[in-house]
Order: sequence, then C-alpha cells, then structure tokens
Amino acid sequence: MINNFFEKRKNIEQVEESTDLAPKFGSDGLIPVVTTDFKSGEVLMQGYMNEEAFAQTIKLGEAIYYSRSRKSLWHKGKTSGFIQKIKEIRIDDDQDCVWLRVDVVGGSSCHVGYRSCFYRSVPFGKLISKSKVNLEFKEKEKVFDPKKIYKDAPNPTKL
Amino acid sequence: MINNFFEKRKNIEQVEESTDLAPKFGSDGLIPVVTTDFKSGEVLMQGYMNEEAFAQTIKLGEAIYYSRSRKSLWHKGKTSGFIQKIKEIRIDDDQDCVWLRVDVVGGSSCHVGYRSCFYRSVPFGKLISKSKVNLEFKEKEKVFDPKKIYKDAPNPTKL
Repeated sequence: MINNFFEKRKNIEQVEESTDLAPKFGSDGLIPVVTTDFKSGEVLMQGYMNEEAFAQTIKLGEAIYYSRSRKSLWHKGKTSGFIQKIKEIRIDDDQDCVWLRVDVVGGSSCHVGYRSCFYRSVPFGKLISKSKVNLEFKEKEKVFDPKKIYKDAPNPTKL
Repeated sequence: MINNFFEKRKNIEQVEESTDLAPKFGSDGLIPVVTTDFKSGEVLMQGYMNEEAFAQTIKLGEAIYYSRSRKSLWHKGKTSGFIQKIKEIRIDDDQDCVWLRVDVVGGSSCHVGYRSCFYRSVPFGKLISKSKVNLEFKEKEKVFDPKKIYKDAPNPTKL
C-alpha cells in the first residue's frame, strides 16, 4: 500500500517537471525533512523520513519522522504532546528533500525546551572580530522543562 | 585557520547550552543546510557544507555549499549570478544542521528556474481521494530560463 504513493524515478523531466511523486531516499533509506512554523516561517527542526514515515505522514496529516538514534518511526509529539499538525507538504526539484509547514500544538519543537531547535545564531562576516566565534542565544526562555516532560528518557543528542 | 571557528565536541551541555560553535559533520564530512528567504520565510533550498564551506560562508557572508555531484566547494550564484547574501546564520540544538537566512540577488535559488526549489506541494490527509498522489505546482512561472543561464552544464539532478 505504501508504495502506491511513490512513483519510480524514470528520468529528470519526470522528477523535476511532472506531477509524479517520485522521492529519492538515500543509501541509508532516508530523505531529509525541513519543518517550518506555518505562521512565522521559522525553521523549527530538521529530521529524516524513511518510505513508511513519509507515507504515514501523507496519510495522517501529522509529522512522522524516522529516528536515527532509536532506529524506529517517530510520531513527533507522542511523548511531549507537541504534535505537528501539517498545513502543507512541499517537495524539492530533484525530490530528495521534503518541506513540512506545520502548526505545533503547545508551541515547541525542540527537545531542549525551546520553541525552535535553531535558538542560537552564528556571527559572520564583519561581525567576526577575532578567530573565535561565540554563538548568540536568540530565544531567552524555554517553553517547557525537558526534565519534567521526558523524565529519564535518554537525550537524543549524540557527540 | 579554519578550525579556529570550530570547537571540539566535549559533552551534551556544551553542544546544546553553550556559546561554543561545535558543529557535527557526518561520516561523509558534511552537515545539512536549510536556506530560507529572509523576507518571505520561504524555504529556498536544502544543501550541504563541509568544514571548509561552512568556515568560508562565515567569513564571506555569502552562501558557499559543498556540491556532492561535483565533489567541490560551490559558491552559490557564481555561474547564474543568483548570489545568496547572508542575513543570519543559525545552528540547531545538537549542532548537526545549519539554517541560513538569505537575500537572493535576482530572486531565484533553483536550477530548474523557479524562485524556490520547493515549487510543488504534496496533497495529504483528507485531500487524498485515491492511492495515487498528484503533485500540485505552486509556482506558475519560472524566474529564468535554465538553458540560457547554464547552457550545456550537466543537470545536477541524479536519478
């Protein structure tokens, strides 16, 4: 059933210029996914989907990723409550990246507790006065306390 | 000199909660990059950087990616003229993804000729009446004619 959604990749014109959904999953079986807030346009997170995660996302209308650390489907928000309700799904020219525009129930998409995972900026160009770059925090307060929500669950960040 | 920008990854607290720039490059030496339009918030493209590309981007203030197809640094817009002027660089919680907010000289970021690479949407949820999904074009007109700009250069899309 899953593969009913996806066409075989036949040629460049089909992939770039047709209405066929013919996504390219990498050698690891995954496609990168960019998720933005529907209202603000802010990038909330970047994740991955395998074929099943992408098909289930299309069917359900809520974001389902593939967790590389847990090696399993990951219905975002099932633990924290911060479900991502999909408003639009886009795919790029060569169909090797997915863009989700979502509304987030509860307003946070980051396991550290911030609204967006991208809560720090990197100074660049003329802003760099010395060789060391110091990140700047763009979000001042966390939306939630990860210790209360995730309790003893392992931190997904890998060194 | 490049490595002056980047700290070694020491522990999760440093990576998630400090001002150290300690990006994680994958086993292929690359970090995924999401690029959005500074004004509209639209996702323009998703690409990759290696260490040198990221360091040069920080120094120059224009987007320099690593081209996986050409296996070399890729100063976006050098051929087409569509330079991406950086307005802000963000990095995510576990520092394995970069978000660029840019102004695009000439207004196009897509080699097919559209404004954004994500010019097609994927119907989902109740919008799916049958098993076949037909993409919908969200941009009606191309910004430029790729044949005139790129001439005989090979198409970067891989099947």
